[in-house]
Amino acid sequence: MTLLETLQQINATSAFNRWAGVTVSHAGSGEVELSMAFRGDDMAQYAGLLHAGLIGALLDTACGFAAGTVAGNVLASHFSVNCLAPAVGEVFIARGKVIKAGAKQVFARAELFAQNGDQLKRVATGDAILVPVEAR
Amino acid sequence: MTLLETLQQINATSAFNRWAGVTVSHAGSGEVELSMAFRGDDMAQYAGLLHAGLIGALLDTACGFAAGTVAGNVLASHFSVNCLAPAVGEVFIARGKVIKAGAKQVFARAELFAQNGDQLKRVATGDAILVPVEAR
Amino acid sequence: MTLLETLQQINATSAFNRWAGVTVSHAGSGEVELSMAFRGDDMAQYAGLLHAGLIGALLDTACGFAAGTVAGNVLASHFSVNCLAPAVGEVFIARGKVIKAGAKQVFARAELFAQNGDQLKRVATGDAILVPVEAR
Amino acid sequence: MTLLETLQQINATSAFNRWAGVTVSHAGSGEVELSMAFRGDDMAQYAGLLHAGLIGALLDTACGFAAGTVAGNVLASHFSVNCLAPAVGEVFIARGKVIKAGAKQVFARAELFAQNGDQLKRVATGDAILVPVEAR
Repeated sequence: MTLLETLQQINATSAFNRWAGVTVSHAGSGEVELSMAFRGDDMAQYAGLLHAGLIGALLDTACGFAAGTVAGNVLASHFSVNCLAPAVGEVFIARGKVIKAGAKQVFARAELFAQNGDQLKRVATGDAILVPVEAR
Repeated sequence: MTLLETLQQINATSAFNRWAGVTVSHAGSGEVELSMAFRGDDMAQYAGLLHAGLIGALLDTACGFAAGTVAGNVLASHFSVNCLAPAVGEVFIARGKVIKAGAKQVFARAELFAQNGDQLKRVATGDAILVPVEAR
Repeated sequence: MTLLETLQQINATSAFNRWAGVTVSHAGSGEVELSMAFRGDDMAQYAGLLHAGLIGALLDTACGFAAGTVAGNVLASHFSVNCLAPAVGEVFIARGKVIKAGAKQVFARAELFAQNGDQLKRVATGDAILVPVEAR
Repeated sequence: MTLLETLQQINATSAFNRWAGVTVSHAGSGEVELSMAFRGDDMAQYAGLLHAGLIGALLDTACGFAAGTVAGNVLASHFSVNCLAPAVGEVFIARGKVIKAGAKQVFARAELFAQNGDQLKRVATGDAILVPVEAR
């Protein structure tokens, strides 16, 4: 099974990611790309933009999966999000990569892009600290 | 209309909050309390815990609504989340409060509790920076 | 040796804290208080306020020492600072406390107050994640 | 006066940066590089590494000066630091760049490298949110 298939399988076990329609479109050592189509009917905040919870979910998942490619199962202990521009898009694409993989902590970073037609605009960035856990 | 009713009305305009069943249970000047019942079928991450996206959504919404009680419409520009303990609960309760309300930025802080039976356990904390925006 | 004396001894081994004149004024289980007199000649940023580096130093040290009271030697892996008000004061007082002490990570939080005459004003808050390390 | 000379002049007005011997070695639109020689006698924490306060000072200053190249005078309202590796070096080099310059907030990011001989190792990263202020 390739790294991509492994992450797709893990992704399929997350009920929330299934609900949101998150897909893993790319995986390499220390990096991943996720994709999610916007649904205004259940993903918007009060002004119609993508809800901050979903911005955080995509960035955190991108960081966690990137960490997973080098450190196995991990849990996020900290993540932070910078909202750079209004999150308006037909599709959202999150790219995560590992900054430093230590034994106790993995540092990762991600960027979130809003796709409209064939244009990509960066709308948010995020950082996460992931803690490796024993495999179940 | 009371502060609580105003926030409940705003909350009802967020498609994501409606989907998640977030309710506003308390509001005062500079502070709010939110509540959300856990649904394992569409809110869990890969290990069955509450997904980090929903942890972030509750903390960010609690900070945003707390800021809203003193600063009107706001948008989050930054938020961060510390995951202190596994997010296992029947109901999750988020309490947000304003730390400092400036003209350009409002700083707020929130805590997330997991309720199991009649026990409350703090599972995460969060910070947010909100920017006041013109009313629509 | 009391907890306070232990921290004062550790504090005295930090060349930077000696230079800055940081003193440990209180220590309990999971909490500490630090104090530092402001010297405009070598502690200011370009506008004459306390330099962000020193704001960070006081908050990070307060978090680290608070963590040390329950977890022994620790190293900061992450810290963040919110600057709430201009850092103008004759003396700065930082109060740190442990939020959650886990085996792999300790979460702590601190507040920084500027003292002018007998008035205390909160000017910054900070969060830190500390990792316990082996004693030397 | 070039952008570099302007920043060097501003840098010279910061008492703390003068004490620390921070120099501005490069400046372009939205990016800067700072340099600082390590002095164990007054810059170390308890284990002899560069003190977190100075790590934060270099990252925050790099972010602030990068923001200054596009937004004039700014004040940091938030900064966060990830400590990736022990900060051991003869010289520390901080590189900051602007991620997004808005009217109300500028987002910037910086990396800190420890130089030993002709080797550079990244030891920390940081993020900052800067608020443009009126010129004095």
